[in-house]
Amino acid sequence: MNLKQLVGEKAAEYVKEGMVVGLGTGSTAYYMVEALGKRVKEGLSITGVTTSTRTKEHAEKLGIPLKTIDEVKKVDLTIDGADEIDAHYQGIKGGGGALLFEKIVADYSDKVIWIVDESKMVETLGAFPLPVEVMPYGSQQLVRIFEEKGFHPTMRKNDKEETYLTDGGHYIIDLQMDKIEDPNSLAGWLDSLTGVMEHGLFLNRVNTIIVGRESGLEVIEAR
Amino acid sequence: MNLKQLVGEKAAEYVKEGMVVGLGTGSTAYYMVEALGKRVKEGLSITGVTTSTRTKEHAEKLGIPLKTIDEVKKVDLTIDGADEIDAHYQGIKGGGGALLFEKIVADYSDKVIWIVDESKMVETLGAFPLPVEVMPYGSQQLVRIFEEKGFHPTMRKNDKEETYLTDGGHYIIDLQMDKIEDPNSLAGWLDSLTGVMEHGLFLNRVNTIIVGRESGLEVIEAR
Repeated sequence: MNLKQLVGEKAAEYVKEGMVVGLGTGSTAYYMVEALGKRVKEGLSITGVTTSTRTKEHAEKLGIPLKTIDEVKKVDLTIDGADEIDAHYQGIKGGGGALLFEKIVADYSDKVIWIVDESKMVETLGAFPLPVEVMPYGSQQLVRIFEEKGFHPTMRKNDKEETYLTDGGHYIIDLQMDKIEDPNSLAGWLDSLTGVMEHGLFLNRVNTIIVGRESGLEVIEAR
Repeated sequence: MNLKQLVGEKAAEYVKEGMVVGLGTGSTAYYMVEALGKRVKEGLSITGVTTSTRTKEHAEKLGIPLKTIDEVKKVDLTIDGADEIDAHYQGIKGGGGALLFEKIVADYSDKVIWIVDESKMVETLGAFPLPVEVMPYGSQQLVRIFEEKGFHPTMRKNDKEETYLTDGGHYIIDLQMDKIEDPNSLAGWLDSLTGVMEHGLFLNRVNTIIVGRESGLEVIEAR
């Protein structure tokens, strides 16, 4: 069994009868959704809240009952992947392009679990390109600002080499920062930029991290 | 001549040959666009950068050559209306629903002129409802947060009583704050909220204000 599948199935065990569950997006979250679908078939009653069109289609196929984030009062538990997690348990997400909806669902969740294989655990964030979701109108101006800052921006493309469009109808600019020394100050600056809809810095947002290591599973209580 | 027309036509005089001009949106900006269209017909050569579909259609009809904000290096001068301007020349915009594109264009402008009739000049912001542009996904959760804060949120509707959709594909929640004592701190908080795409607080963003008063025109150099 691969590490992504291992942590995905482990995380699904945290889901209890009657819960409203935030369903993350990506290759690791995929296995968690699969495992939950199996448990639902076996009789588990839950409500899923999805973070992308992709996960929505997957969960529907598995027969997991779904609601939008606006149809529930809150989410009991959200399980999602992450692209990079630093020594202070701050994360970068958005490699799969679903950062805005993932952050929305996480913000209304009582508890958030991230599931990763050990390659995602780092000392300092920044080797993974930081996704910034932006309005198409003005996006070239933002690229110029990021270039001037030395952040090496690239506009994300889809498989057809067209500009990638998020579920929210925005573009994604990936920043190659190498080392993000102060994630809080970077997040504040990005938040303040007109045309930036969201960014992939997920700070103080995770409660439990399940890490799949070749040596076995590690469960970290982050907050 | 009404006051809106008076300031609109006055502002158009600030536009010089060869300029890239940000064209605002709303009932006052309308007259400025009209006046510019007349000058273009008389031989003035400018490039307009529009802030809404509505202004784009208006400017096209008048034969003003247009580019998007991404097709110009910067804007020389933006002329736009405002819904409320306080004693420190901070403003609320977005009554017309174009706040996101207006703020994008303003941010890349060397100089910004606001044109208003005297009814818009106030001591403290907040009597005018503050527009907040939000992602549809999660918008009901934001309404709940604003309700808990006592900000009396209402989801904006269009003429057909459907939820109003901005040019960017977002909703607008109007906040009835009455008095905004600390616009900077409110802006920072709104910027930090997931799902908030932009808000109508335009702080430290205007250079010159042209006020139409029954007693005549007043020109304020704000910055």
